[in-house]
Amino acid sequence: MFYHIKELQYDAKPDKPDPVYAKKLQEILGGQFGEMSVMIQYLFQGWNCRGEKKYRDMLLDIGTEEIAHCEMLATMIAKLLDGAPVKEQEEAAKNPIILAAMGGMNPQHAIVSGLGAKPDDSMGYPWNARYTIASGNLLADFRANLNAESQGRLQAVRLYEITNDRGVKDMLSFLIARDTMHQNQWMAAIAELEQKEGFIVPNTFNRENEKQEVSHSFMNFSKGTESAEGRWAQGPSMDGTGTFEYIENPEAMGQIPTMTPPPPYIHGTPPDFHIPPME
Amino acid sequence: MFYHIKELQYDAKPDKPDPVYAKKLQEILGGQFGEMSVMIQYLFQGWNCRGEKKYRDMLLDIGTEEIAHCEMLATMIAKLLDGAPVKEQEEAAKNPIILAAMGGMNPQHAIVSGLGAKPDDSMGYPWNARYTIASGNLLADFRANLNAESQGRLQAVRLYEITNDRGVKDMLSFLIARDTMHQNQWMAAIAELEQKEGFIVPNTFNRENEKQEVSHSFMNFSKGTESAEGRWAQGPSMDGTGTFEYIENPEAMGQIPTMTPPPPYIHGTPPDFHIPPME
Amino acid sequence: MFYHIKELQYDAKPDKPDPVYAKKLQEILGGQFGEMSVMIQYLFQGWNCRGEKKYRDMLLDIGTEEIAHCEMLATMIAKLLDGAPVKEQEEAAKNPIILAAMGGMNPQHAIVSGLGAKPDDSMGYPWNARYTIASGNLLADFRANLNAESQGRLQAVRLYEITNDRGVKDMLSFLIARDTMHQNQWMAAIAELEQKEGFIVPNTFNRENEKQEVSHSFMNFSKGTESAEGRWAQGPSMDGTGTFEYIENPEAMGQIPTMTPPPPYIHGTPPDFHIPPME
Amino acid sequence: MFYHIKELQYDAKPDKPDPVYAKKLQEILGGQFGEMSVMIQYLFQGWNCRGEKKYRDMLLDIGTEEIAHCEMLATMIAKLLDGAPVKEQEEAAKNPIILAAMGGMNPQHAIVSGLGAKPDDSMGYPWNARYTIASGNLLADFRANLNAESQGRLQAVRLYEITNDRGVKDMLSFLIARDTMHQNQWMAAIAELEQKEGFIVPNTFNRENEKQEVSHSFMNFSKGTESAEGRWAQGPSMDGTGTFEYIENPEAMGQIPTMTPPPPYIHGTPPDFHIPPME
Amino acid sequence: MFYHIKELQYDAKPDKPDPVYAKKLQEILGGQFGEMSVMIQYLFQGWNCRGEKKYRDMLLDIGTEEIAHCEMLATMIAKLLDGAPVKEQEEAAKNPIILAAMGGMNPQHAIVSGLGAKPDDSMGYPWNARYTIASGNLLADFRANLNAESQGRLQAVRLYEITNDRGVKDMLSFLIARDTMHQNQWMAAIAELEQKEGFIVPNTFNRENEKQEVSHSFMNFSKGTESAEGRWAQGPSMDGTGTFEYIENPEAMGQIPTMTPPPPYIHGTPPDFHIPPME
Amino acid sequence: MFYHIKELQYDAKPDKPDPVYAKKLQEILGGQFGEMSVMIQYLFQGWNCRGEKKYRDMLLDIGTEEIAHCEMLATMIAKLLDGAPVKEQEEAAKNPIILAAMGGMNPQHAIVSGLGAKPDDSMGYPWNARYTIASGNLLADFRANLNAESQGRLQAVRLYEITNDRGVKDMLSFLIARDTMHQNQWMAAIAELEQKEGFIVPNTFNRENEKQEVSHSFMNFSKGTESAEGRWAQGPSMDGTGTFEYIENPEAMGQIPTMTPPPPYIHGTPPDFHIPPME
Repeated sequence: MFYHIKELQYDAKPDKPDPVYAKKLQEILGGQFGEMSVMIQYLFQGWNCRGEKKYRDMLLDIGTEEIAHCEMLATMIAKLLDGAPVKEQEEAAKNPIILAAMGGMNPQHAIVSGLGAKPDDSMGYPWNARYTIASGNLLADFRANLNAESQGRLQAVRLYEITNDRGVKDMLSFLIARDTMHQNQWMAAIAELEQKEGFIVPNTFNRENEKQEVSHSFMNFSKGTESAEGRWAQGPSMDGTGTFEYIENPEAMGQIPTMTPPPPYIHGTPPDFHIPPME
Repeated sequence: MFYHIKELQYDAKPDKPDPVYAKKLQEILGGQFGEMSVMIQYLFQGWNCRGEKKYRDMLLDIGTEEIAHCEMLATMIAKLLDGAPVKEQEEAAKNPIILAAMGGMNPQHAIVSGLGAKPDDSMGYPWNARYTIASGNLLADFRANLNAESQGRLQAVRLYEITNDRGVKDMLSFLIARDTMHQNQWMAAIAELEQKEGFIVPNTFNRENEKQEVSHSFMNFSKGTESAEGRWAQGPSMDGTGTFEYIENPEAMGQIPTMTPPPPYIHGTPPDFHIPPME
Repeated sequence: MFYHIKELQYDAKPDKPDPVYAKKLQEILGGQFGEMSVMIQYLFQGWNCRGEKKYRDMLLDIGTEEIAHCEMLATMIAKLLDGAPVKEQEEAAKNPIILAAMGGMNPQHAIVSGLGAKPDDSMGYPWNARYTIASGNLLADFRANLNAESQGRLQAVRLYEITNDRGVKDMLSFLIARDTMHQNQWMAAIAELEQKEGFIVPNTFNRENEKQEVSHSFMNFSKGTESAEGRWAQGPSMDGTGTFEYIENPEAMGQIPTMTPPPPYIHGTPPDFHIPPME
Repeated sequence: MFYHIKELQYDAKPDKPDPVYAKKLQEILGGQFGEMSVMIQYLFQGWNCRGEKKYRDMLLDIGTEEIAHCEMLATMIAKLLDGAPVKEQEEAAKNPIILAAMGGMNPQHAIVSGLGAKPDDSMGYPWNARYTIASGNLLADFRANLNAESQGRLQAVRLYEITNDRGVKDMLSFLIARDTMHQNQWMAAIAELEQKEGFIVPNTFNRENEKQEVSHSFMNFSKGTESAEGRWAQGPSMDGTGTFEYIENPEAMGQIPTMTPPPPYIHGTPPDFHIPPME
Repeated sequence: MFYHIKELQYDAKPDKPDPVYAKKLQEILGGQFGEMSVMIQYLFQGWNCRGEKKYRDMLLDIGTEEIAHCEMLATMIAKLLDGAPVKEQEEAAKNPIILAAMGGMNPQHAIVSGLGAKPDDSMGYPWNARYTIASGNLLADFRANLNAESQGRLQAVRLYEITNDRGVKDMLSFLIARDTMHQNQWMAAIAELEQKEGFIVPNTFNRENEKQEVSHSFMNFSKGTESAEGRWAQGPSMDGTGTFEYIENPEAMGQIPTMTPPPPYIHGTPPDFHIPPME
Repeated sequence: MFYHIKELQYDAKPDKPDPVYAKKLQEILGGQFGEMSVMIQYLFQGWNCRGEKKYRDMLLDIGTEEIAHCEMLATMIAKLLDGAPVKEQEEAAKNPIILAAMGGMNPQHAIVSGLGAKPDDSMGYPWNARYTIASGNLLADFRANLNAESQGRLQAVRLYEITNDRGVKDMLSFLIARDTMHQNQWMAAIAELEQKEGFIVPNTFNRENEKQEVSHSFMNFSKGTESAEGRWAQGPSMDGTGTFEYIENPEAMGQIPTMTPPPPYIHGTPPDFHIPPME
């Protein structure tokens, strides 16, 4: 169960309104790697957690924090929309600075949400649940989490770079720092699990059931061998069970497929159709 | 530019048709972590790559291989659909085994695709491009790739477990092995980049611009302290720049937000509305 | 900012696993009118609220409660999935009862979420943010909320009817009661606002700017006049500003549209194309 | 069955082209609460109606009218796109007024629809059927309809405010008036049903089956008691069956959930994993 | 503007309820090539039509007919859902025939729509506007229409084959006949336009501006030359302006792309990163 | 299986960066009729092909070529994004030319993809698999393909018209020429199949099972008879089996539907509800 307090986790006070930037800032609220994604992802991973209690607890700690990050961003966006020049006036329509600002706004910030934040990304695409994963395998999911925090911090940094508003920068400096911690956190949790389980997800599958002759081969499907220069093409494999091999000219190991004709009630194209060439 | 040969990378030959399993197998073709996702993800990462040539080359190698994995799965699904009992017959409707099979099929496999594979997942949800990421930051993206291969192998293993068809298991044993390699590959590429760049994405952002006092703090937002037992709550941080701190009772650092009334042309609810209690 | 405690708001303990019902129960977690929808809707309405403080506070109270409802449903679904018969065995494939259960399951509950709840509806369609609204006009939004609680309670009741599991029924009896309260709550809040503002949203728009001659007319576009029997076709209008009028044979008041030919660079079909009839 | 006449229900004649406004006007054609939504919603409610004939008739009356509203908006949008400056010319690229107009256009209005309206919203997001509901319970659905007409009129009013085009304003004045009628209509239909059925949807569920002790309690999950000031926190409940109660410190009534370990073939993380802290 | 009459265009009377078939029949109501798609596609093509009046008139004729087809299908689906066995009873749960029927139903037909049709396809995926096109070029669009009627008739035929219900078959025999007419209609309209305009869309683009040396070349990117046997690989081109050419070994005509490093504020991976191989 | 070479099929070298045009060019990469659509559509049609070998081979030839077209467009978009003015600077914010360019950009090109192409359309909507079809009936599918190449060439031509960049125009001149060939190709393949199979898809359905009296009738549902002037309203039908008939006043052939009341556990609105008019 959850409780709310009125204070934000950190200040969300822009220097001044900026509706064009409000549109852009939506990305880290309702985008693919925005705060809504990590909120829902961590909460569901926690609620579904069948592992040790400390993992469930930790996941719900951070999931609960992410709700507060959504709150900060929604507040900031609403404040950036204060006084948005949505009402066209004769003069404004002739002022290219105002006109450009109006063109750069998300029109739904005026028409739909009435100067409020939306659970959408910077292109107005609504958040959806396929942005998240909770697989029941914590090592897999912590890798998803590390990725989410990496993409999220990268986007927050880009948004930091393209504004001069000190209030916005201050809030982003907090979110960026939390993303630093969260990258650290998932690396720590991954290290714990890898130390115990090994490196390949899932580790409980019997490796004899996989076609092991291709388990450590890099296949060069693109002409030229620049790809041979990487760590992935030589030396011991990362899982400690083999050696990387570089296959310069990979060959097919499978059949040429032939398909059975469909039954008549499917009304497909019959396979034996002989059509004489047109004159 | 690309070329095709008729042979599959590996055999896709089921022992016998099984339309219910065909529906399930769609997950790793057109699902969130299916082969279409890694195909599009690696190709776009390669095409957009502004980094060293070996990365572009490597990304296009593996992206090209994934097209072949889509081909194998599409072939397998079409073969599993051979002779699907879609045509209701009086007798069949009374045979619960057949009836259950009909109920468990994806009806679009008959009505829409005419016994062919679809670019959808196991619930019939169409593949979409928000399943992928290409951020221009390779460390971030390789973490996305490691996650995709972890989730993908986990799903392939689950599908391996729930079939008895030796042909299907044989094909999956190949795909699972390739996922083993690809997890190894991304771990290797990540290790290379982390060794050079450091561990936090993006590493080029000046850490002094982030609120460093919260860059290594685990905040316990969920009552109870089981989460203190993890590696993430103590010891040196994974990025080597600090020490993990456990904050048992995190407190708000921000303001209570107050919002400006909207301008009249927005027709929001005025803030000073005084409404007497109803009698 | 938010805090979490480990106890659920109310018990989520099924008598026994039932993976087919777990699929159905997803509807009120991640469906159009599920708990995720009201959670996100109330939180955004609260965060964006530019009205009186009591509305913001009330919205965040109920939004916070809805997170707990998501938690209860996710827990229940995970428990209903315990021991799902996803692993096909020779015997099972011949037992129609088990086979039907397997056919009726959501395959992603096994393959993707590993026996965990998903943020999706009962057909596996992912939750998306267009299910919600926060318009900045509280009377409009409270009507959205009353609708959401009405549809939500209706769906919960239908789910109550189709199970015999006492544990599930017990949890639903709690959620249904809360929906009763929440319908009451929104009716009360609506009554307050209507008493002050009037009945038409938005009330701040000058009625002289609307084409008032059609503001109270019911237009009978479907042959036959059964629709004349309703309250909407006679008597004083609900907004107190007019009288309902029934127009039995509504006529067009507008022009026959004629369209300008497109400019050449659009490459549309030219309007003056004269094509002689084919022989 | 349906018939069409060439005249529009009301004039759709802008003073002059305005491609930037055309983009915005899409919101009330193909947006969440646009005319397509009410068209499909009312038609499906009518077609599915198992209630009294007057309801079916009334729903199809209004559903048929909404097709005509889509026609008016599509016509208006196409006319606003006449002569859109999509063809970049050297001079234009240096004229900031033209440039801003080009930036503010929906590029698909040129590239995809060739200066025609699209069934999308103002951010180019395509209309989808999850915007609608037809539940089989008319009281629930009429509340959905009242909400749709409230949000729709609010958006139309906002669009009225941000244009100076008299032709556009004239058409909107008609649509806004019809929205006034339709809010009136749904309020009237709701009043009829509530008078007969009672206020809680669905009214046919035995109230003894719900956990009645929480059916009239407002729970204060957000610290501070501003929310106690509302009508929803005191006095008789709106459904006439109880009294509102304000619970200042709501407590959990449920268990701390514990989850069963997954079966081995799911390859989740085992619950008894003991991982020693990293050195 | 539109009018409605109560009679259906053709009978929609099933012999008996069949909720599993109701789920499947949704495909041609709310699926990619269902009646909703052609309804919206033809109406928007008509409303946007800047060509000769007869095209606008014809498009609105057929668009209006398609609304009636949606009405017939919605009616049929609702009738097929009469008495759906959604209420689990102890006995039913042990009867595999009933159990399979319950498993094969769309659960939203019970929980969400209360035994009514939904604007969704047979997998429960909601209809969306990207299923349609109205490009402003009638030859292009009539080809889209011919495709829609071809796919639509194919799906209707498949649905005809998999039912024994005479009432359903009777209604489908009508819809299939109309699809026959509509394929004829679009072929006729296409023939008219091609006779005048020529065969390549758009015909108004100056062919000298295209790279004409590849305008009639079939390129064999897949090893093996079976594709040389088709009409497309030899003889005069269909547009009458050239001769088909078969290029057995197509070669690249373009550069090897090299990408500029990103500016620092993008925080991508620098291109000159030199990472020594790991030990 | 597939191979890649580093050379592009044709040059993708813009004269200079143009981030606003990059946004627009996304339409033919990731839009409804972009290169991703034909790539996936042709590959799946080929992989699922149960017809003659030459069709499978031809489909995979062209599907493989389309991957190369995606590569060219992705490269071009990334190059157009070089040096995008995403970093706001005090001076830039006052320069309306730069400001308009910033407003016209897709913000995700900076924030999400780091100056790389995205698998999205020009409004940022992600590509999804419902853009494609592979039905198992080749005549149906080749009509889909002809439509896709017609819409695709139309969009490429419009994009050609709205740029002055010679490098972009050069690349588009190549893609437009290939679209010319591909329209030719599908016309040729369609002609072959129609010559053999006949003109109505599917041709294998017994025409006696359709309601043949309406198989050649044009129904005039829109008042006025301009639609009588077309080829579709007179003369022999295109399928050679009848004569077009023009029905000026089409009448309903079906019943007035009456619906059964829902069972109690559905909690719909009872049909016999008698509600007295409100006072």
